Amino acid sequence: MIKVAVLGATGYTALELLKILLRHPEVRIVAVTSRQEGNTPVSSVHPSLVGRLDLPLEDLSPEEVGARADCVFGCLPHCASAEILPRVVAAGARVIDFSADYRLDDPASYLEWYGHAHPDPERLGRTAYGLPELFRETIRGADLVANPGCYSTSAILPLAPLVKAGLVETDDIIVDSKSGVSGAGRSPKLTTHFPECNESMSAYNVGRHRHTPEIEQVIARFAGVRPAVIFTPQLAPMDRGILSTIYVRPRGGATEAGVMECLRDTYRGERFVRVVDHLPGTKDTVDTNFCDVTARAVRGRILLISCLDNLVKGASGAAVQNFNCLHGFPEHTGML
Amino acid sequence: MIKVAVLGATGYTALELLKILLRHPEVRIVAVTSRQEGNTPVSSVHPSLVGRLDLPLEDLSPEEVGARADCVFGCLPHCASAEILPRVVAAGARVIDFSADYRLDDPASYLEWYGHAHPDPERLGRTAYGLPELFRETIRGADLVANPGCYSTSAILPLAPLVKAGLVETDDIIVDSKSGVSGAGRSPKLTTHFPECNESMSAYNVGRHRHTPEIEQVIARFAGVRPAVIFTPQLAPMDRGILSTIYVRPRGGATEAGVMECLRDTYRGERFVRVVDHLPGTKDTVDTNFCDVTARAVRGRILLISCLDNLVKGASGAAVQNFNCLHGFPEHTGML
Amino acid sequence: MIKVAVLGATGYTALELLKILLRHPEVRIVAVTSRQEGNTPVSSVHPSLVGRLDLPLEDLSPEEVGARADCVFGCLPHCASAEILPRVVAAGARVIDFSADYRLDDPASYLEWYGHAHPDPERLGRTAYGLPELFRETIRGADLVANPGCYSTSAILPLAPLVKAGLVETDDIIVDSKSGVSGAGRSPKLTTHFPECNESMSAYNVGRHRHTPEIEQVIARFAGVRPAVIFTPQLAPMDRGILSTIYVRPRGGATEAGVMECLRDTYRGERFVRVVDHLPGTKDTVDTNFCDVTARAVRGRILLISCLDNLVKGASGAAVQNFNCLHGFPEHTGML
Amino acid sequence: MIKVAVLGATGYTALELLKILLRHPEVRIVAVTSRQEGNTPVSSVHPSLVGRLDLPLEDLSPEEVGARADCVFGCLPHCASAEILPRVVAAGARVIDFSADYRLDDPASYLEWYGHAHPDPERLGRTAYGLPELFRETIRGADLVANPGCYSTSAILPLAPLVKAGLVETDDIIVDSKSGVSGAGRSPKLTTHFPECNESMSAYNVGRHRHTPEIEQVIARFAGVRPAVIFTPQLAPMDRGILSTIYVRPRGGATEAGVMECLRDTYRGERFVRVVDHLPGTKDTVDTNFCDVTARAVRGRILLISCLDNLVKGASGAAVQNFNCLHGFPEHTGML
Repeated sequence: MIKVAVLGATGYTALELLKILLRHPEVRIVAVTSRQEGNTPVSSVHPSLVGRLDLPLEDLSPEEVGARADCVFGCLPHCASAEILPRVVAAGARVIDFSADYRLDDPASYLEWYGHAHPDPERLGRTAYGLPELFRETIRGADLVANPGCYSTSAILPLAPLVKAGLVETDDIIVDSKSGVSGAGRSPKLTTHFPECNESMSAYNVGRHRHTPEIEQVIARFAGVRPAVIFTPQLAPMDRGILSTIYVRPRGGATEAGVMECLRDTYRGERFVRVVDHLPGTKDTVDTNFCDVTARAVRGRILLISCLDNLVKGASGAAVQNFNCLHGFPEHTGML
Repeated sequence: MIKVAVLGATGYTALELLKILLRHPEVRIVAVTSRQEGNTPVSSVHPSLVGRLDLPLEDLSPEEVGARADCVFGCLPHCASAEILPRVVAAGARVIDFSADYRLDDPASYLEWYGHAHPDPERLGRTAYGLPELFRETIRGADLVANPGCYSTSAILPLAPLVKAGLVETDDIIVDSKSGVSGAGRSPKLTTHFPECNESMSAYNVGRHRHTPEIEQVIARFAGVRPAVIFTPQLAPMDRGILSTIYVRPRGGATEAGVMECLRDTYRGERFVRVVDHLPGTKDTVDTNFCDVTARAVRGRILLISCLDNLVKGASGAAVQNFNCLHGFPEHTGML
Repeated sequence: MIKVAVLGATGYTALELLKILLRHPEVRIVAVTSRQEGNTPVSSVHPSLVGRLDLPLEDLSPEEVGARADCVFGCLPHCASAEILPRVVAAGARVIDFSADYRLDDPASYLEWYGHAHPDPERLGRTAYGLPELFRETIRGADLVANPGCYSTSAILPLAPLVKAGLVETDDIIVDSKSGVSGAGRSPKLTTHFPECNESMSAYNVGRHRHTPEIEQVIARFAGVRPAVIFTPQLAPMDRGILSTIYVRPRGGATEAGVMECLRDTYRGERFVRVVDHLPGTKDTVDTNFCDVTARAVRGRILLISCLDNLVKGASGAAVQNFNCLHGFPEHTGML
Repeated sequence: MIKVAVLGATGYTALELLKILLRHPEVRIVAVTSRQEGNTPVSSVHPSLVGRLDLPLEDLSPEEVGARADCVFGCLPHCASAEILPRVVAAGARVIDFSADYRLDDPASYLEWYGHAHPDPERLGRTAYGLPELFRETIRGADLVANPGCYSTSAILPLAPLVKAGLVETDDIIVDSKSGVSGAGRSPKLTTHFPECNESMSAYNVGRHRHTPEIEQVIARFAGVRPAVIFTPQLAPMDRGILSTIYVRPRGGATEAGVMECLRDTYRGERFVRVVDHLPGTKDTVDTNFCDVTARAVRGRILLISCLDNLVKGASGAAVQNFNCLHGFPEHTGML
């Protein structure tokens, strides 16, 4: 049994993580932390956990957490993560970080997109990017895994194989994504107040969403050159789910059939990427760790369509997949 | 043209009110106020108003408002209303108050349910309760009209005629109501955060919702005795609409047919109460000032079912109906 | 490993059942049937199952199913169930029936509420009513278990202990229930067409919903006398979840504390009934087999509030709990 | 008073149209037709109309309709429209056609996209395309106006001025649109069954939606050449609203500021196109005839974002605007 702790256990990704971990046969949850809610049971914050997990929320130091747990999931805000998680690693635990702090390799890029200097710049580029389908080997040996952004996963999984195979151009990639509202977190705001966002669709952070450099950086690893990605996030009136519609130009006469074949070849042995012929809907993947992908040729372009649950494959399911990868369990343990 | 002002114009009832007033042929909006948002256009707070009403929000004194407008709609929190609106009346304007401050006749009841002493107790019982279908005559001569609570209207309209006609017992009334989320106002809270209340139903304030004494007081006027009302409000995952299911005991052998006939007789000439044979849904009344009502006899009880839009017949439409009543316009002016 | 089959595998309860069974460590799914969709993979009807369960839908005779499987889940319409399932039992399999056919003990009551004579009247009253918390012993020895109605479970779980303990009157029970739309099944109809039922609440089948006699019959077992239940089902704009608000009269001076204590005592050892202090929302139970229950005293009445997921505790989770009960597995196997 | 009739009055666009017409000071509704629902009041099909419009649905011949009404709104399926509406015109009435039958100029294109020969090919190209902001002069003299497709309006309004001004390339236009479910009509189907489409987003008709040639044809009028448009429609879990995100390439160094200026100049005097600085949400336009538009420059591309209510500016509001245009009333009559 692996002893695990969850830092920042009051948010939605933490709740989803705890639900998965409770079903995981190799896991014992030994700590859940919160700065604000100290000493109340985690089930008083998340009533769906009553009777399933009534551990108290604790306000523990990184060293205490690292000593108590073998593996620590960090569900902290960015910046806070890079201040706290290195101390957890130093205390001997392996860490899976839900924040963006260790996703970008380049401190300058972090400064540009996150607006402040990185608290732990030396570690950048030396952690694993937690997308097992593409970076399984690196993850296995890592002491700190950067769990990918939810939008990033929905874009990278369909794009990476095609870029790697040279089937699409890299200088003209448009990612138009629609996300459920849980992606915005659990802190009440006007934009996520029910009567504001229900029955409405709207774009936000156009041209400046922080998953843009993350997508570009990962695609660059397969492309050899820096790609140009236009990424447009949009809020849809639903709890969960991301639908990404991706517009790329085929290269060297690539066809819809060729693109589908490349996707199928890449993901043939993968449990969690389903290359499908039909047009998938986000509901096909809700509450699962699947990412469904398909492709269509339209008037000289290739459209890639991907669906996933932002809280599972886009966050907590991916984290458990990384956890399984780190510890040598079958990657789907606890998730099928 | 009647010059009107709206106090506290940043909330949902104010927005709905402004939309109705913009269509009203006898109205000119001369002021919209806000303490926090002074000097920005009201359309920057409510983007649906861009190009329709771009008046600046102003932080005006009650005296300034009362001098500038003939009729003032107060969309202020309770307690604040009773401090500010008397000064507006004193300045010469008629007032329609959306808050609960002048709904209860009895300062002791106000203290019990609202938790503080009433700021203007002498006026209690001397204002009009703004349900024109039942209190039209009083409203016409009033200088201050207390606009009813949304739940209250949905309960009183079906109950009052039956109580008055002696067709139902008054000591055993159960009102089970389901409301859309806009009823909770525009301030973000965890309970109205989209991922919390979407796809969920829950009861709140069981046994202690403040519309309970309001319903009882109005029913008492028709019953001659104080009734006993159990009122259960519940939050439904939708923007607008109240469905009230009301369980009463028939008196003196009253039948479903007799109850329906009484309702039809009472509301025959009314534009905004529709007594229907089918089971109405809230959507039949959304964006209208209608309240749809029907009755069924079930195993010795009478069920009354009513639907209305909490922001229209439950708030701003009722207010405009009161406005029309005050000024001698046909009550539906601006609303059909 | 128990070999199981699912009859009528194209609906929502079947889909939910298959998802749970796929996680069950003691189950092998050996057949999924459909009359209309023969020979297409079940995952073509339910795309969320792609890669998880790609068995073909088959049009099998009851005898073939009974021979192939140890335990059969019947997700067939009422009437069809009572024609087909006895043949499955005769072929040697144990059966869990999702339909209403074996819930009522009395053929006359079945005729009254379902509008046709029961096809297999001799078996009525000799099957088990599949609510393990109350009828565990009977279920264990049954060859046919009648899985309860979703509304019925939400009403019976809070009511039965109080009736048994004599804490509430039985001649004045009001059950006001609100259900998500999946309860209406997977066949498109105008009433469940998205633009009709979204953003709306409405009552249906007032006074004549078929779960009424089911609730009364089960309560009667605990009361000794036939109770009088008024049951009002209402459609809420959400996928899943039932919130039941139940109004009863206390007997012999029963208090809120006494009622809560009785509920806690009854369900202390039960994994799937959570007696909670807070007001539960349906979302607390969605995707789980939990039923959350609480009580409040209001003006001389006791209010019971219960929440569950109509597709899980209200259908497929209950069925697996019954399956576990039948086969001697811990009741929560596959469901925590 | 203009006497109007509505053909095919049982659908959602007809309902929305009737609601607007009821508020129109210059209109008298003299007939509503339906083949299936003959002789029942239109309010029995649309319960929101009870007490507002209780005219019987009639099964009238085109000649009868044309004789009785001055202006006829055709809410019929395509193909049926082109068989019936010419007879209405011949009978002396002016016609506004909600179907697609007279939108395309070219019978070959109609055959290609609609799958059958046009029943009235001679009239193609001789009717008016009902987008008053762009084709007001033609509409004024027309006897038959083709009301635009909802997606088409959301794409054409932002694109046309930029194409006309030469600010964007025409050979690389991507229109990614998200629509509420009412756009799919009132006939129940599995894809629009609440539990299927609620809480989900999905693309449909990728590369082959029939609004594609309509958008291209209208843009071609301003471009001088046939443009290449990739149009992706997507279903969002909401009743109403279209959000279109449009990706174009700037031409001749066009900037965000230049594009915004061009949009503002074009629509300065228009009541129903609002060029806004903020990112609009569909809710800003719901229940109104507004189309909100903005632009952003992102990494070498121009993004255009437009919002409208598919049932109002995308259908019935546009139709009344055309009606006003035809009859010389201010275009916003009945709609502000």
